[in-house]
Amino acid sequence: MPFDTRARIVSATSELFRRQGMAGTGLKQITKTADAPFGSLYHFFPGGKAQLAEEVIRTSGKMYFDLVMEFFDACPDLPTGIETAFRAAADLLVETDYADACPIATIALEVASTDETLRVATADVFADWIDAGARRLAGTGLPEASRRRLIIGIITSLEGAFVLCRALRSTEPLEAASQTVLHAVRAELSEHSTGHARLPG
Amino acid sequence: MPFDTRARIVSATSELFRRQGMAGTGLKQITKTADAPFGSLYHFFPGGKAQLAEEVIRTSGKMYFDLVMEFFDACPDLPTGIETAFRAAADLLVETDYADACPIATIALEVASTDETLRVATADVFADWIDAGARRLAGTGLPEASRRRLIIGIITSLEGAFVLCRALRSTEPLEAASQTVLHAVRAELSEHSTGHARLPG
Repeated sequence: MPFDTRARIVSATSELFRRQGMAGTGLKQITKTADAPFGSLYHFFPGGKAQLAEEVIRTSGKMYFDLVMEFFDACPDLPTGIETAFRAAADLLVETDYADACPIATIALEVASTDETLRVATADVFADWIDAGARRLAGTGLPEASRRRLIIGIITSLEGAFVLCRALRSTEPLEAASQTVLHAVRAELSEHSTGHARLPG
Repeated sequence: MPFDTRARIVSATSELFRRQGMAGTGLKQITKTADAPFGSLYHFFPGGKAQLAEEVIRTSGKMYFDLVMEFFDACPDLPTGIETAFRAAADLLVETDYADACPIATIALEVASTDETLRVATADVFADWIDAGARRLAGTGLPEASRRRLIIGIITSLEGAFVLCRALRSTEPLEAASQTVLHAVRAELSEHSTGHARLPG
């Protein structure tokens, strides 16, 4: 069984979970979308949907973080990085007819109270995002507690904006969330800057 | 068929959708949780799960807004209202073993790209929250665009924090989101206050 069939199954599952959640996604739909024989799913994932779901959560969670960080890294400072990342997320939503947002949010809500193994997988992804994001903000000179608070504020704003944008079919929530986060970033930078007078705003 | 059976079905469905989403909730589980005969579901909801889901989205969306607004209305000003509402949400999460958060977020993500009727129902709920929330902020003296941006920032922060809190089984995301929103509120109040000097923070 060619290994790229396995990759296609993971990729198709990630796309389907992102758009419609896990419970609403059947194994037949997965193999059909992946253009893979039905038997290949259990060949590569003897644990079935549960095993596949855990791999999808962990791999797509990591890929998504790297994608968002590319926008940050290309920007000269944190506020510009936030504006750019939120705008890129809005552009992607519009391009994909409001389907492609966070790959693990839907499944995270579905499994939080129903499947402890998968709940832990989503928790590991979010915890990694927070830790890695807080480390990336080290260059801002902000203390660790402040960086951690900010990165959680950024992630929660982005996740919540995705819920509203997809429901409303509008990018306004991402724009408002971006402004909310920018206010917080400027306030934290200002609070912790030393020796610089600052005007409000 | 007693009418309170209908109310029990709606209430049980709301609870199950909130905890595990719509696709993962079966009709038998609904009637069992509601302590209702299976046939009563189609008696009251001839349109089945779709009809029931639309009613649950609309009624629980309205109830949830009223609940959150009670916390705001009991507070002397907007920052205190935000702190109180986010803390109450955190307390409720802990009390319910991280199950009870927004009643429509999970289903909103599930249906956004798969069921236009239910997508519109979730959009109507979010649009009502934004409009009604922006009206409640009229007392702040902020211009309409600013009030709208702030209330969307509050709702998106709350929704995103619920995703992370439930996954991580921690209230830290709600605390960080509350701080993020408070920074934005203070900045907007400061930008639009006239005749008042202001210190940063």
